[in-house]
Amino acid sequence: MSRMDRREIDFLLDGLLDLEGLLSRPRYAHLDRDALSQVLDTAAGLADTKFGPHYHDTDKHEPERIDGKVVMLPAVKEAVDALAGAGFMAAHHDEELGGLQLPWCVVQAAFSFFQTANIATAAYPFLTIGAGNLIRSFGSPGQQAMFLAPMLTGRFFGTMALSEPQAGSSLADIRTGAVPNADGSYAITGTKQWISAGEHELSENIVHMVLARIKGAPAGVKGISLFIVPRHRINADGSLGPDNDVRLVSLLHKMGYRGTTSTILSFGEEGRCQGFLVGQAHQGLAYMFQMMNEARIGVGLGAAALGYAGYRYSADYARTRTQGRPLAARDPASPMIPIIEHADVRRMLLQQKAAAEGAIALCLYCARLVDEEKTAPDAADRRRAGLLLELLTPIAKSWPSEHCLEANKWAIQILGGYGYTRDYPVEQYYRDNRLNPIHEGTYGIQANDLLGRKLFMENGAALEELGRTMGVTIARAAGMPDLAGHAADLRDALTRVASVTARLGQVRAAGDVALCLANATAYLEMFGHTVLAWIWLRQAMAAADRLATGQGDADYLNGKLAACRWFFAHELPKTITQAALLASLDRTVLDVRPEWL
Amino acid sequence: MSRMDRREIDFLLDGLLDLEGLLSRPRYAHLDRDALSQVLDTAAGLADTKFGPHYHDTDKHEPERIDGKVVMLPAVKEAVDALAGAGFMAAHHDEELGGLQLPWCVVQAAFSFFQTANIATAAYPFLTIGAGNLIRSFGSPGQQAMFLAPMLTGRFFGTMALSEPQAGSSLADIRTGAVPNADGSYAITGTKQWISAGEHELSENIVHMVLARIKGAPAGVKGISLFIVPRHRINADGSLGPDNDVRLVSLLHKMGYRGTTSTILSFGEEGRCQGFLVGQAHQGLAYMFQMMNEARIGVGLGAAALGYAGYRYSADYARTRTQGRPLAARDPASPMIPIIEHADVRRMLLQQKAAAEGAIALCLYCARLVDEEKTAPDAADRRRAGLLLELLTPIAKSWPSEHCLEANKWAIQILGGYGYTRDYPVEQYYRDNRLNPIHEGTYGIQANDLLGRKLFMENGAALEELGRTMGVTIARAAGMPDLAGHAADLRDALTRVASVTARLGQVRAAGDVALCLANATAYLEMFGHTVLAWIWLRQAMAAADRLATGQGDADYLNGKLAACRWFFAHELPKTITQAALLASLDRTVLDVRPEWL
Repeated sequence: MSRMDRREIDFLLDGLLDLEGLLSRPRYAHLDRDALSQVLDTAAGLADTKFGPHYHDTDKHEPERIDGKVVMLPAVKEAVDALAGAGFMAAHHDEELGGLQLPWCVVQAAFSFFQTANIATAAYPFLTIGAGNLIRSFGSPGQQAMFLAPMLTGRFFGTMALSEPQAGSSLADIRTGAVPNADGSYAITGTKQWISAGEHELSENIVHMVLARIKGAPAGVKGISLFIVPRHRINADGSLGPDNDVRLVSLLHKMGYRGTTSTILSFGEEGRCQGFLVGQAHQGLAYMFQMMNEARIGVGLGAAALGYAGYRYSADYARTRTQGRPLAARDPASPMIPIIEHADVRRMLLQQKAAAEGAIALCLYCARLVDEEKTAPDAADRRRAGLLLELLTPIAKSWPSEHCLEANKWAIQILGGYGYTRDYPVEQYYRDNRLNPIHEGTYGIQANDLLGRKLFMENGAALEELGRTMGVTIARAAGMPDLAGHAADLRDALTRVASVTARLGQVRAAGDVALCLANATAYLEMFGHTVLAWIWLRQAMAAADRLATGQGDADYLNGKLAACRWFFAHELPKTITQAALLASLDRTVLDVRPEWL
Repeated sequence: MSRMDRREIDFLLDGLLDLEGLLSRPRYAHLDRDALSQVLDTAAGLADTKFGPHYHDTDKHEPERIDGKVVMLPAVKEAVDALAGAGFMAAHHDEELGGLQLPWCVVQAAFSFFQTANIATAAYPFLTIGAGNLIRSFGSPGQQAMFLAPMLTGRFFGTMALSEPQAGSSLADIRTGAVPNADGSYAITGTKQWISAGEHELSENIVHMVLARIKGAPAGVKGISLFIVPRHRINADGSLGPDNDVRLVSLLHKMGYRGTTSTILSFGEEGRCQGFLVGQAHQGLAYMFQMMNEARIGVGLGAAALGYAGYRYSADYARTRTQGRPLAARDPASPMIPIIEHADVRRMLLQQKAAAEGAIALCLYCARLVDEEKTAPDAADRRRAGLLLELLTPIAKSWPSEHCLEANKWAIQILGGYGYTRDYPVEQYYRDNRLNPIHEGTYGIQANDLLGRKLFMENGAALEELGRTMGVTIARAAGMPDLAGHAADLRDALTRVASVTARLGQVRAAGDVALCLANATAYLEMFGHTVLAWIWLRQAMAAADRLATGQGDADYLNGKLAACRWFFAHELPKTITQAALLASLDRTVLDVRPEWL
């Protein structure tokens, strides 16, 4: 079985994310590093024993609807029950809610074990935690007692129910309706599509977080409200009441991620679907963005986990599979060599390593920003963390989902024909990962979010903050002999980003938003690679420090330095031509006419 | 159904490949353009009626072994029988053999219809034609009568049986043995793996082209001989004899291409497997390279066909699916627009178009070189065509298989969640296409073939010839106002290729082959993109000529110009940083140690 390497997680938490500093804050006074190590041990153990073993089976035997019920392998329920039983549904929540009050970055690190072992089964708790966080942030005390409490123990699971058949990316166009009932609840009617974990028998109840329009609400996103809509009604004593008129229309059959049900649901076909308004009317999209942003980073981490699993699997394969001989000694009577000795196999491993480990580091860095935003003593620090998080969220979503999919491609390639068969897990990683550039905002939508919103918000404050933060890294690396060259390259890349951004800002200020955004995905690529170079330089600095002081596993740390070198030599230079393209304000995509295509 | 556009094929044959000039040669005196149009009409009709309809079904219901026989959908046999019945098994062969004596480029163009409609079913005739060509080139008259003749009518099908479980890419290590029998035949024993179309009931007999070692042969590639090994023996009168001790060990289960059986075969388990030596002993690999080279271009065309099918499907989808609104008019009360109006959707369509149409053009250009090598009146022209073909074969194999896989990724992306479901064909295109960078020589092997063999053979004569050929294009385009900028860019790219090649040649001459080849795949990318830019400039020139004289469909021709612009603006510049990387002689992949990965 391929799995997350514990060294990786410890290196990131201690070397990159200053876990020690975080633990010194009052919120975490009940914790120490040993306690967190035990949490990670528990996650690794559950991943190995409960999640990994049925990863292939849940792809081969996807959930089916039989006699109106969704039937899936019993191993799925065993896994999610074990996860909930170990406290992971509530791990980051306050102790007074029954949580473990762990840092979010540690919870996410623990989740990376589950995601590496079985991304499809991990999706059920992932969505439940996101839905629970939404209720925790915006739900009333009564809603928290009724819905959140049972979600924290795993009795209830959750979903996010946004899309509809006619409104996927375009949430402005959702039609699901809500009409006030006399008792203060709402009657919900409508159809939702692509609802992951929308139906199953894994939990007593399913809590759908539904976007809908209250009758008479304004058109567009300003008329969207957020409702809690349970599958079963809940009696005043907390026991389950009758079903709530939420119907499974059909299961969708996907290329990958098959163990996670994807559903079309209808609400209120019989006029008795009850929903509960969360927070204020018409503020639903703003609330939901909390769950979406969290989910975006989670999707990125899932993509990274799949990339990592493929990397580890193909690296182990390359060490044992023999084929061919060295270029300089091709005597056919000599024994064949492990394919890891071939330059192109190493290239494919370095490319995977740079993508997967870089992506995990980025996503955990974002999780650490969530902790910083919540717990930093100084308000200015909290604000800075929030700005960085806003700016980096589209990168954390998009970069792993693109480049770790690519990494999985190379994992297959290392296994050759074997990798293309369903007897090895790498083709499943690749199929599963293909979802990640689509859900929670497509690649193109992340590009528009970055270039159309995040860069220019608050007069460019977020980019300024990122530049300042990267400048600290550059200044320190410039003084480290082996890394000074990388520091200079990163400074150049950052200068290019600033220059291109200023140029596009002029175009935008002149009113030509379409031209500004014409090549937004190229901008996303350029920006993402620059961020990842920074993440890699920070990892290299931590590795060099440890090597210099003899801490840690030298092979592991040298691997970090090699992957950083690879990224700076083979990947970062791509930003040069991307910047030139963007600065040229190329109009090809605007000028091409639909009838020419 | 998504299909090859006939305008595309006509444009390439007439505008790029000088079909008219080719038809003026004696070998084609029996043909005219109308006759070839009818051939293409027939292919298009068969593709629509016989190949396309079961494309999805043959993925869902892959071949199974039942009671010792391989069972598959009856539609597969109906399709291949119809193809053979229409003469496509023998289309390029001499009339005296019963063939239609068509140019190879026209036969390949016809095949692109079958491949676009159903790549998995098209593989059976594809392999049969390749095996037949091998017997035609190197088999004795008796072998041609016994095996080739029934292959030309589709009574017998063929395979190429090279790989073994322990020897995939490393053919030097094959172990299958051959011991002379008293009657001049050989007793074959061994196991072959990854044999596509290795077992089925589509034809009366299967003719395996098997690489094996005659007892006592030298080690390595110098001891490999080629044998014809039929599934059933053949009696002197041509009727089928007893089975020939070739056993299906198992069917392999793949991510895609599921309709094409992939097999493990054992030969001679009972000691009665009879093989027939083709040509001279120990020359087998040299012979087989003819089939491999042909197959490599065919794989490229198949990859291109899949890329094209995804392009057409997603373009049609983008015209009808509505979602969102223009950036400048976002009133939610206004109707949604077709997604083809969004810049990033156009980007994804242009990227697919540039990849797929460029790849088809390149592969048909290579097929045209086959015709040129065979029929040019002047020996110097034949030699030049042969040199170009050798140099371009690794590009024709690798570029489409990488970039049309990428194209299929974008086709899925345009369909969003729908594209990720198995209800739409684009996910199958993507899964099918993932095979193409693996079989017939992996991506890395093509890179080593290009940089390790083809570039430096005959003192660089092939690259010199390509430079001369591209120079003609550049000179003419430089005089066309709209294309002069592209001409200059291509000249710069060619200069970079020459400069990098010279640098790597020095390294090689100094004896450091490992350093020369360290970044061979980056070289393959750079070289491939330069070749494709040239192919696109040639298409743009033909399109501009036609637009200027009012010939042809203006929308179609403007699409060619737009795709060319896209390629030069967004793709060709990537060669700048690739060239810089290569010139730097980056050693990262050589210096990294296996234990660091």
